[in-house]
Amino acid sequence: MSENKKLVIGLFGFGVVGEGLYKVLQQTTSLNGTIKKVCIKHPEKKRNAPDTLFTTEKEALLNDKDINVIVEVIDDAGAAFDIVQTALRNGKAVVSASKKMIAEHLPEILSLQKETGLPFLYESAACASIPVIRNLEEYYDNDLLHSIRAIVNGSTNFILTKILEDKLDFADALKLAQELGFAESDPKLDVEGYDAANKWTFLLTHAYGIVAPTSSILFNGIQNIQLNDARIARGRECEIKLVAQAKKLDDGGVAAFVLPQFVPQHDALAFVRQEYNGVVIESGFADKQFFYGKGAGSFPTASAVLSDISALRYDYKYEYKKLYYHEPSKLSSDFYLKVYISAADWSQLPKEELEWIDEWHSGQQRSYLGGVIHYSRLKDSDWWKQPGVSLILAPEAIIEPGELEQLRPVRTKASLEDILA
Amino acid sequence: MSENKKLVIGLFGFGVVGEGLYKVLQQTTSLNGTIKKVCIKHPEKKRNAPDTLFTTEKEALLNDKDINVIVEVIDDAGAAFDIVQTALRNGKAVVSASKKMIAEHLPEILSLQKETGLPFLYESAACASIPVIRNLEEYYDNDLLHSIRAIVNGSTNFILTKILEDKLDFADALKLAQELGFAESDPKLDVEGYDAANKWTFLLTHAYGIVAPTSSILFNGIQNIQLNDARIARGRECEIKLVAQAKKLDDGGVAAFVLPQFVPQHDALAFVRQEYNGVVIESGFADKQFFYGKGAGSFPTASAVLSDISALRYDYKYEYKKLYYHEPSKLSSDFYLKVYISAADWSQLPKEELEWIDEWHSGQQRSYLGGVIHYSRLKDSDWWKQPGVSLILAPEAIIEPGELEQLRPVRTKASLEDILA
Repeated sequence: MSENKKLVIGLFGFGVVGEGLYKVLQQTTSLNGTIKKVCIKHPEKKRNAPDTLFTTEKEALLNDKDINVIVEVIDDAGAAFDIVQTALRNGKAVVSASKKMIAEHLPEILSLQKETGLPFLYESAACASIPVIRNLEEYYDNDLLHSIRAIVNGSTNFILTKILEDKLDFADALKLAQELGFAESDPKLDVEGYDAANKWTFLLTHAYGIVAPTSSILFNGIQNIQLNDARIARGRECEIKLVAQAKKLDDGGVAAFVLPQFVPQHDALAFVRQEYNGVVIESGFADKQFFYGKGAGSFPTASAVLSDISALRYDYKYEYKKLYYHEPSKLSSDFYLKVYISAADWSQLPKEELEWIDEWHSGQQRSYLGGVIHYSRLKDSDWWKQPGVSLILAPEAIIEPGELEQLRPVRTKASLEDILA
Repeated sequence: MSENKKLVIGLFGFGVVGEGLYKVLQQTTSLNGTIKKVCIKHPEKKRNAPDTLFTTEKEALLNDKDINVIVEVIDDAGAAFDIVQTALRNGKAVVSASKKMIAEHLPEILSLQKETGLPFLYESAACASIPVIRNLEEYYDNDLLHSIRAIVNGSTNFILTKILEDKLDFADALKLAQELGFAESDPKLDVEGYDAANKWTFLLTHAYGIVAPTSSILFNGIQNIQLNDARIARGRECEIKLVAQAKKLDDGGVAAFVLPQFVPQHDALAFVRQEYNGVVIESGFADKQFFYGKGAGSFPTASAVLSDISALRYDYKYEYKKLYYHEPSKLSSDFYLKVYISAADWSQLPKEELEWIDEWHSGQQRSYLGGVIHYSRLKDSDWWKQPGVSLILAPEAIIEPGELEQLRPVRTKASLEDILA
C-alpha cells in the first residue's frame, strides 16, 4: 500500500544506541532499509558487526550518493551538529538522538530544515521510547495546550526512587545507578538537571513554539535532595520528582522550568518510578493525557530512532505549527512559585526573598520553610543551588500574579519575620 | 513548510461528537479545513450552527466534487457503512468514529482501502483521545509485540470505580453513570462488553494483523459484578477492571479476550479511574509503555477526529503492516485462564469445568472459588455469563499449555472435589 521507499542509511556512532539500532534493524525485515556504512571514532574497538561496515571517514557517508538517510547517535554535540549540517546540505534526511546538540543549535537547525526542506527527526532525544514529539505535533498541533509536565530524565528518577522508597541517601543511590548503567561515570549532566533542561528546550518548541536556549530556562537537579526531604515528602503523601513543566498563563505567556517537586501519590507522575519517563499533557480538547515508558536504554532508544527512520518512508517532517502557523508563545517571568526550602543552617534560608512564609521548622539536623517566591527572584540568584540547600516545589506550584493577593495569609510577612528573627 | 492541502469537509452527524468537532474546527484556524455541509436526520432539531449548513440529503455531500473529506460520526452502523463505501468509491478520504460499524465491516473496509488507495482513518473509534492506533501503526509496526492490555470503555470503568471506591452496588453505579451522561439510556452495549469487544477487533488488526469478527472474541461485561467481589478485590489489594487484552503465545498464536480482571494496585491499569481509558503495551524493543486519557466525551473524541483530519493533509494512511507485510497472527484457543468465580448458590459453580481449584469459600450471601480453566471451556459455554454468576480473571491470568503441569497443585483435583462434594 505504501510506496515503501528504499532507505539506505549511514550511521554515525556504534555505542549503546547505535549497536542497538543495528540489532533492531537486523530483526526488522519489514522496513525496506539497510545500514550501508557506520562511521566510528575508535576502529581498534571490537564490534559485534562485520569489519567492512565500519569507517572512520565521515565523508565516506556524507558524500555517498546512495545513502539517503543519516542517523546520528554520537556523544559529541559539536561534531554531531557538523554532521547534521553537512548531511542536510547534501540532500540527506537526518535522524538524531543528540539532545544536547539539538538544544544548543535549535535556531540553526530550524533554518536548515527551512532551507533544505528535508526531514530532521529526533523523537528519541526527548523521552526515548515515548512518542512525545510526534504526539505534540500530530495530536496537539491544533489544540490549546494548558500545560505539559514531564519526567524526562531516567537516571535522576531512578535515584529519587531509591531515596524515597529504599531510604538510600543521595550518594549511595547515585552509586547504585552508576553500577546498573543508568548514570554516566560523570553524572553531572543528568544529576544537576542539564539533560532535562536541554530536552525541555525543544519540547517547548513543539508544545508552544518557543525557541529559547537552555540558559533561559530555570532549572536545577536533585544533587541537594536530602533524606530528610524524603521523610517530609512521605509525611505529605508525596513523592519527590524532577519535573520539567510548562504552563500557559492568563496573560498568554508560558511559565517553564525544571525543578524538583513534591508530587502527590495520586498524580500520574507519581506512578513513574525507577528509570521510566512520563508526560502529562492537559489541553482544551483532548483533556488530560498521560504517556509513560522507558526513557533510556539501548533498545527503547533504538526503537524510537527506528520509528523516525520508518516515518521517512513517507517523507514525514515536523511542521512546528505552534512556531510557524500560530502566534508563538513567549517565556514569562511574571509569576510566583510555592516552594519548600530546607538547609542545614537556618541562616541559609533567605526569608527576605519570599512574599510570605506559610510554615517553618527548625530541627537539630535541618531547618525548613515553606512559602511563596517570585520566579524572577530565583532566576536572578543561585543561593538555592548551593550545597546543603534544597528547594522543592509544592504541588500545583505556579501562582499567577492575579491570584497572589487572595492567597496571601492574613498574618503579615512582617509579623512572621519578627517571630523568626 | 507543508503543502497544507485544503480540506473541504462533508460531515455526517451533528450529535455530541459532530457538534464538538464543529466547535473545535471553528477555534482551529491553523488547519486549512472547513465544513461545507452537514447531513443530519432530524432537520426540526434546534442546532448551534447556521441553518444553511445542514441538509438531509446524503448525496449533497457524497456527490459534491468540492468535498474531499467525509467525516462520519453517526450512530447507525448500517447507514455509516453505506456512507463510507460510497465516499471512498467517489474518491473522498474518510474519517470515522463508528466502532460498531468498523468492527462489523472490517474485511470490506480493508478491501475498499486497497481498491481505492484512499485513507480511511478512525483513531477516535478506539480510545477517543488516546492515539493508540497511530502508535501501534507508527511505533510498533516493526516491533515484536508481546502483549497489549487496555481499558477501552469509559462508562464501565466509571461504574467499576464507583463500586470499588464508593461501595455503590452495580444498579446505583449505573444510574449515576447515566445521570452524568457517561452511559446510554440503553447501556447494554457498554455494560455487557459489546463496545469493548468491538473496539478490540480492530485494535487486534493493528497490533497483530488479526481480522476476526467480534463473535470470535471471548468477552463479557461487568453486569454481574457484586459488591462482595469488590470486597474480595480490596482484600487482595486489587481493583476490578474490564480489561481487553491480547498476548502472543509461545506457539505464535494470540490469546485475546475482554473480561473483568483483578488488577493489582501497582499495575498501570489500576491508575485508570472514572471515565478514563488506558493502554499498556509491552514489546521487544520499546519495552513497556502506557497511554492514558479521556476515553469518551464530546471534545476528547472530536480532538481525535481532528487529528485524523489533520493527518489527511499529508495523505496519511494506515499501512496495516502486521497484516500485509508480516505473517499475520492467528487467534489461539489453546491456553488456560486463572479465574475467580462467585455465585449466589454453590451449585452454580461448575467445579467439574476446572483443571483444578486453588481456593474455595462458601458464605451466607455468596460462594466463590478460584482455579484454572481451559479457554475453550469458556468459549463453548455461557454458564459464566448467567445472572448471579461473576467470573473475574486473576492478575497474570494466561497460562500457556507448557506451563500447566508445573503449576498444578500437588493436591489432586479428585481429592479436592471429594472435599467439595
